[in-house]
Amino acid sequence: MPKIVIKPYNRIIKCKTGDLLSHVIKKAIPNFPTPCGNRGFCGKCLVRVLEGKLSEVTGNERLHNLKTGERLSCQAKVLSDLVIEIPVFEQYRALISGYEPKVDVITPILEKKIVEVKYSTYHKPIPVDKILLKSIDAEGFTGKCIGNLVYAKNFSRITICKRGKNVTHILNGYKKIYGFAVDIGTSKIATYLVDLDNGETISEIYIPNPQTKYGDDVISRITAVINDKNTLYEMNRMTLSSIEKMIKEMAKKNNIEIKNILAGVIVGNTVMISIFLGLNPEPIGRSPYIPYLSTKIEDYGDRFSFNLLRDAWIYIPPAITGFIGADAIADIVTTLMIEDINKNILIIDIGTNSEVALIRNGEIFVASAPAGPAIEGEQISCGVKSFNGAIYRVRIEKDGVNFLLYGETPLGLCGSGIISLVSEMLRKNIISKNGRFYGDKSFFEIVSKDKSSTGKPITITQRDLREIQKAKAAISSTWSLLLMKNDLSVNDIDRCYICGSFGSSLDLEDAINIGLIPKMPLEKIFVLGNAAGIGAKLMLISEKARKISEEIVSKAKFIELASDKNFMNTWIRNLNFP
Amino acid sequence: MPKIVIKPYNRIIKCKTGDLLSHVIKKAIPNFPTPCGNRGFCGKCLVRVLEGKLSEVTGNERLHNLKTGERLSCQAKVLSDLVIEIPVFEQYRALISGYEPKVDVITPILEKKIVEVKYSTYHKPIPVDKILLKSIDAEGFTGKCIGNLVYAKNFSRITICKRGKNVTHILNGYKKIYGFAVDIGTSKIATYLVDLDNGETISEIYIPNPQTKYGDDVISRITAVINDKNTLYEMNRMTLSSIEKMIKEMAKKNNIEIKNILAGVIVGNTVMISIFLGLNPEPIGRSPYIPYLSTKIEDYGDRFSFNLLRDAWIYIPPAITGFIGADAIADIVTTLMIEDINKNILIIDIGTNSEVALIRNGEIFVASAPAGPAIEGEQISCGVKSFNGAIYRVRIEKDGVNFLLYGETPLGLCGSGIISLVSEMLRKNIISKNGRFYGDKSFFEIVSKDKSSTGKPITITQRDLREIQKAKAAISSTWSLLLMKNDLSVNDIDRCYICGSFGSSLDLEDAINIGLIPKMPLEKIFVLGNAAGIGAKLMLISEKARKISEEIVSKAKFIELASDKNFMNTWIRNLNFP
Repeated sequence: MPKIVIKPYNRIIKCKTGDLLSHVIKKAIPNFPTPCGNRGFCGKCLVRVLEGKLSEVTGNERLHNLKTGERLSCQAKVLSDLVIEIPVFEQYRALISGYEPKVDVITPILEKKIVEVKYSTYHKPIPVDKILLKSIDAEGFTGKCIGNLVYAKNFSRITICKRGKNVTHILNGYKKIYGFAVDIGTSKIATYLVDLDNGETISEIYIPNPQTKYGDDVISRITAVINDKNTLYEMNRMTLSSIEKMIKEMAKKNNIEIKNILAGVIVGNTVMISIFLGLNPEPIGRSPYIPYLSTKIEDYGDRFSFNLLRDAWIYIPPAITGFIGADAIADIVTTLMIEDINKNILIIDIGTNSEVALIRNGEIFVASAPAGPAIEGEQISCGVKSFNGAIYRVRIEKDGVNFLLYGETPLGLCGSGIISLVSEMLRKNIISKNGRFYGDKSFFEIVSKDKSSTGKPITITQRDLREIQKAKAAISSTWSLLLMKNDLSVNDIDRCYICGSFGSSLDLEDAINIGLIPKMPLEKIFVLGNAAGIGAKLMLISEKARKISEEIVSKAKFIELASDKNFMNTWIRNLNFP
Repeated sequence: MPKIVIKPYNRIIKCKTGDLLSHVIKKAIPNFPTPCGNRGFCGKCLVRVLEGKLSEVTGNERLHNLKTGERLSCQAKVLSDLVIEIPVFEQYRALISGYEPKVDVITPILEKKIVEVKYSTYHKPIPVDKILLKSIDAEGFTGKCIGNLVYAKNFSRITICKRGKNVTHILNGYKKIYGFAVDIGTSKIATYLVDLDNGETISEIYIPNPQTKYGDDVISRITAVINDKNTLYEMNRMTLSSIEKMIKEMAKKNNIEIKNILAGVIVGNTVMISIFLGLNPEPIGRSPYIPYLSTKIEDYGDRFSFNLLRDAWIYIPPAITGFIGADAIADIVTTLMIEDINKNILIIDIGTNSEVALIRNGEIFVASAPAGPAIEGEQISCGVKSFNGAIYRVRIEKDGVNFLLYGETPLGLCGSGIISLVSEMLRKNIISKNGRFYGDKSFFEIVSKDKSSTGKPITITQRDLREIQKAKAAISSTWSLLLMKNDLSVNDIDRCYICGSFGSSLDLEDAINIGLIPKMPLEKIFVLGNAAGIGAKLMLISEKARKISEEIVSKAKFIELASDKNFMNTWIRNLNFP
């Protein structure tokens, strides 16, 4: 068994001869990036080999002009003991909190009742199961909970819960009950632990989505399933156990017993939800781009293959289409828990898959913008995730470039940093409105090679700019077409909500300056943070939120822009900066 | 490991030193009787030891005046190889069929639909899950069935089923679907396999209830659970695997795939249902005699610990009290599928635990009569189950006693034979109306010792007569008090229905003659056979029958006669024959 030493972490891991090096590294460093799904395209998984032997260099590696000792770990197989060096990629930063609308009345997905069982043993007593049904106004029991009826002895005190007309849980004694909300993002999974008795969030936590092993975007994940059916099962298991691990960790830290965590709401885009359900996501990847299941679904955890959470009641809100999943629904739910549906409201969730919703006089229109990963800094030469070393704000002064970064030594620009940089280059006339460098420049250097942690300068190239323009055009065309189709101008919008971990990390002025979001007074723009996760929490604790989610789906009109005759023209026009 | 040879069957079985002999015999001969639950009371498990060594004779064995070589197998533990002889007890005969009311419209518990999936891959197609929901008018899916949504590809043909508002089953291709009904009786389990497409019974089968290992009556079973909690689990497993075994057998014989058996209805008295559910039956054994669960329950088979039938949808009708269980409900359901609820109807299910229902102008009154096992021939000196050798009709002629029996050589009298004999002794003035032998007789011989298979004469004793009188009085007091409390006389009854395997095996004139059932014209009396099993089948295939079952429970008034001030007087009066 070859032994691999990974520097600078000095992690040591054993593997089998022939194992793919990127898989081995990921076992030790889970956030090691393989955004293109081990296909040798992106070059992000570059490592320096200090000692040992790997398989032959592939054609794809040759495209990357590797220096001596450098290899793409997604192409190289382990043939001996190795000492390698990888860039410093720490756990990346993601925003999982957000603005939480006030919920006046807590109506958790499970209604709870404390019952003091007491019946006469004489004349015609009420059977104990009838006492329970009456106390919580239920009609029956699920097959799963009847075993616990034995707790309902005479003079006992028990806690019961119902969902709909059925009693779902019978607990011995007076118990506090808990729930959880999960937002399965393509790149991260955020989990929240909630006190169902008062609706308060006890703890929140996130991890990188372990599915990134099979690629950074949903298309890579679908491709991985097409290539090997077992991948679906593996991604499903990874996702479930990650969620359980997070909940276990939060429960332990807060002295909460897992068996008192009785409910959960799970949101995510349709590919994430399909993988969570163990349903093949393939149909989402081809016309008509529709998942097997778009209806709301709820049942016990074991029906979704949870183990630790097998007894928890799980609720997954519906999706509208393959592009507008339960996460987008959760965004709109959060907004509508704040806003009046009769105003003109624009909701924009910016990311690799961006969603835009327009609410107008009680009507809801939704559209999807396949912005691509460039908007989040992927496939950009100097782009990195928001690990330590990521630059997230840029200001170009006369005496040089100032920037804000995570950690100490710059490694690259994360998505918000790139948008900040582009905006600043526009302001300082380094690039024109059509995205060209003025003069004969073909790149702009932000950090020189001696100050960069990689030993290479951090620059933005003309090609990078083009990628950003395309992504930006996809998003701005989507909201501007939605407005146009409704005879609305930006001035008619009462409020604009920016959702999502990425969108919420942007500098609004930068985003307006490059035309990513509509130009309107900042006081009309509300940044919600991870509105999908918040929406999941709201659905966990509020009947109103759940009703809204189902109403959205029945009301919302999905506007398919890809087939709209105006889309291409609008997109071309929007390639330019404002 | 001691080796036991069981004669006259010449069965050989190995066991451990110290094993209880009756347990060992039961493994080889499942219907070997241990009615008192291995407590050494009844003496039915007597064996003759031809060779080998057993543990010491117990006090209870001494009470039975055993001859040399005779032992009670429930008291004796195996200490060496043995050769023993037991009476010939074949599988006893039980009636599990019955009169089946015509069901005009089949509405099985699962509604089935064949769907040809077809959708445009162009402009705004309907998602496939929505196509399914619409085709069967459902609102959602259960967590258990969503995995099969992958069958619903474009141009596929699938079979879907729903229960309530939820799709429960998605099968690949056009499928016929099947269901099963089970009547878990204290002494036998009857199972029916039903075609859910046309409502017809494909096959029916029964086995002795394997729980008889722990005693013949429900009290013995409850006692067994009180003494050892594991017994509940063991009886539960026995019951479930017996049902699955019967269904497997019927399915195989009829070339039906188990996975197409999608629904089941299960009835039984409350102790049997508690054991089936794995719920401790203990509370049924003590005041106020109420099971943990009396509400109707339905869910997938796996929730009831079925293995083979884990995907089948199981329905268990409600019970009224500990004494009026789902089996009695099923009796009334069968009757009300035939009868007008506005007539005056008497329903009598005769057996160890007898139930009586009176229907009067739409009202339903139910009562329970703890007749005791004597009525079925247990605890009667010459009583046997209806195995081969059981006498079931007796006529006393001048030249001797004529009788009908199962098989060739008489072994004893089964319940219907005893009632026939008592009736005939009344007719022929051998006993008086108060149950005493005329003259100085203390017994009556039906078969002499040289014609009996045991080598002992088959007789009925004064003590036996007393037991029969007590049992008969319990039943007739119950129906007569129910009538009296409603100011009805026997003449006001439009129809009397006799239910149950045992009741239906009686000669009606004999039963009327001893006062067990009301004296009314035979044309007003309807013998339904195993109406509980039939009722279970009706609930499997008819919405009307299920509605009736729930209506019965909400309407029926349980008349507790044990606490009625008139009961004791009526009972004493009814000890006499009419």
